[in-house]
Amino acid sequence: MEKQINTALAEIKRGSFEIIDEEAIIKLLKDFYEHGTHYYIKAGFDPTAPDLHLGHTVLLQKLATFQKFGGIVQFLIGDFTASIGDPTGKSETRKILTKKQVLQNAQSYKEQVFKILDENKTEVVFNSQWLNELGAGGLIALASNLTVARMLERDDFAKRYAANTPIAVSEFTYPLLQGYDSVHLKSDIEIGGTDQKFNLLMGRTLQKAYNCNKQQAVLMMPILEGLDGVQKMSKSLGNYIGVTDNANDMFGKVLSISDDLMWRYYELLSTRTLQEIENLKQGVQNGTIHPKHVKDDLAIELVDRYHGKGAGQTACEEFKKIFAHKEIPSNIEAYEVENNSWICQVLVDTGIESSTSQARRDILAGAVKINQEKITDEKMNLTQGEYILQKGKKSFAKVIVKGNN
Amino acid sequence: MEKQINTALAEIKRGSFEIIDEEAIIKLLKDFYEHGTHYYIKAGFDPTAPDLHLGHTVLLQKLATFQKFGGIVQFLIGDFTASIGDPTGKSETRKILTKKQVLQNAQSYKEQVFKILDENKTEVVFNSQWLNELGAGGLIALASNLTVARMLERDDFAKRYAANTPIAVSEFTYPLLQGYDSVHLKSDIEIGGTDQKFNLLMGRTLQKAYNCNKQQAVLMMPILEGLDGVQKMSKSLGNYIGVTDNANDMFGKVLSISDDLMWRYYELLSTRTLQEIENLKQGVQNGTIHPKHVKDDLAIELVDRYHGKGAGQTACEEFKKIFAHKEIPSNIEAYEVENNSWICQVLVDTGIESSTSQARRDILAGAVKINQEKITDEKMNLTQGEYILQKGKKSFAKVIVKGNN
Repeated sequence: MEKQINTALAEIKRGSFEIIDEEAIIKLLKDFYEHGTHYYIKAGFDPTAPDLHLGHTVLLQKLATFQKFGGIVQFLIGDFTASIGDPTGKSETRKILTKKQVLQNAQSYKEQVFKILDENKTEVVFNSQWLNELGAGGLIALASNLTVARMLERDDFAKRYAANTPIAVSEFTYPLLQGYDSVHLKSDIEIGGTDQKFNLLMGRTLQKAYNCNKQQAVLMMPILEGLDGVQKMSKSLGNYIGVTDNANDMFGKVLSISDDLMWRYYELLSTRTLQEIENLKQGVQNGTIHPKHVKDDLAIELVDRYHGKGAGQTACEEFKKIFAHKEIPSNIEAYEVENNSWICQVLVDTGIESSTSQARRDILAGAVKINQEKITDEKMNLTQGEYILQKGKKSFAKVIVKGNN
Repeated sequence: MEKQINTALAEIKRGSFEIIDEEAIIKLLKDFYEHGTHYYIKAGFDPTAPDLHLGHTVLLQKLATFQKFGGIVQFLIGDFTASIGDPTGKSETRKILTKKQVLQNAQSYKEQVFKILDENKTEVVFNSQWLNELGAGGLIALASNLTVARMLERDDFAKRYAANTPIAVSEFTYPLLQGYDSVHLKSDIEIGGTDQKFNLLMGRTLQKAYNCNKQQAVLMMPILEGLDGVQKMSKSLGNYIGVTDNANDMFGKVLSISDDLMWRYYELLSTRTLQEIENLKQGVQNGTIHPKHVKDDLAIELVDRYHGKGAGQTACEEFKKIFAHKEIPSNIEAYEVENNSWICQVLVDTGIESSTSQARRDILAGAVKINQEKITDEKMNLTQGEYILQKGKKSFAKVIVKGNN
């Protein structure tokens, strides 16, 4: 049992940035292995944007890990504040959603997250259910549990206050509501991003204030880096793998990442055990496994997860059929360009051509390929997407064309 | 009509400490005199303490003045927050009240205030009626209208924040609720004490934010001085005249005030017009009216108000029967002493006696009177109340014995 608990704890801690009250987690694991007692892990999700990329799935994978070791997930859809929106009208990110939109989004969420989470160990809950009942009086009572000074210690509030950037009084209520969710749900653990520390701790504070007989442990996960390996994965940066990306795109994108980033993705996204990953690493190190195969395996695992068992292998073969034996080097430098960039200018900017006039001549001569296909229109513009540009057999560049923001 | 408006405005401004948007008040008066259009003056009252003293009636007299000139009073009983109490549990002043207690207190309020206000021009309203409906969402939307920085500008918050004295986040909601009351009630004017400026202005701010087609004018009244003429009238300082004091006590207390304070009370408490008061002042100045008679008249007016027409004259006669021809000077110096002070020590402290042993001898010799009555017990202690001490025919002192705090 000691060993089971240690294994579980190691998997739970895997990739985490910070854990508060690890002792509590150990106790929950003990209770599970000794008495079969389940425990509750809460994670909150924004009801506005159910179109997930792998960055969002870091938390989901961690929830799935907990489910393996006795945890029941409280998948909280924060629809209460969405019904208010941003009353200041200043924020585009806080759009008012109707009940119908919330339910539609929730449905879309479920379709995506149950590819990762065990549906039988997941409770999907909407906080409007208890926050609507709270009333103005309940909210005031809630707000009495925290001082203004403590609230202004929150990193972003502190910065804005110091910089004289307005903070609406209403903004002070959001951390309180998040904390109150934990009171209502009697959560044992809450997980979130590192940027959520203040709000996650609010659950502990309020559970104490409301005389719950527990205070939730808190586990914070880091932000996942995007395909570039540097910036956080995000739609607006174009460096993402979408959960709904088609199998071939997903496969190709995974193959495009660096080896370092590959190990990072293994840690944060793969369901392989720590021991299996350690074995892979040693294999690569002592030359018995080629890193390309390890990357293939990661890509296959992820494609399988979102497109069904076998889809990863199919995408792998498809990919090889197209790209193998065509002498595209595996490490092509990638460039980001604006949407609707002129192909000739892009060829110059990526260093493939020395001038746009030379580029034009080469295109007309049939020497330029995009994604292995010859092009003939020297006036074309590149639209959003990723492309491999090629001149002759030796000059390559990968181009990421950003969308319009 | 110009003259009517000017007279009304002068009576409205009488004794006020500050008016914000006087133009709006003038416009309301014009509309009243031209079209008979009534307007609404809001004043908020604490539902916990319906036991009023004259200090509280300064606002009520001002409301009564407005009623003479077209105003309808919105007598707001702030029962909403009383249903929450002080959730921090730190404040004794914010006790939780049941609905029944609130209604009992409201009844007691009515019995007292309708001796001043015209019941036909008064709407008694309870803010729980609309604040209960507001809900947590409505409160958050409300709180979005003000910034934390602006809230921390409020004088008492600023001081407490600077001194690291905790301010609960809930405290930020109270000014917002008070302002929202004005939104709901569509008040044209709100009146309150000078210490309420921030909260009174909140009504203007929120009426604008909620697109009301008006912003309330604000009229602030000063705090009434107590019988000592220096400190504010308050129960705990013992320098008050209670609205429910019996007629003789009330009469006697009014007579005990200084001439300066008498004019102050005329300004803030009397229903005599400014012109009548001016006439009295001139009469005193040119010696045609004795100030003692002016004070009698004030005392009679106040006793009549709270005990019915004629009660003032009766109290006046009673008073004269007891005190007249006993040669007590009208201007006796007043001393404050602790509860249970030894009579001999008090006689020394007030300068009537040179030593406690001399005081003891004089008492045993029957030369000392308290309130015109000889005393014989040289060991007695003075308990809470007001007393005229007298030795022989020439030495007098007034003693105010404080209660235990």
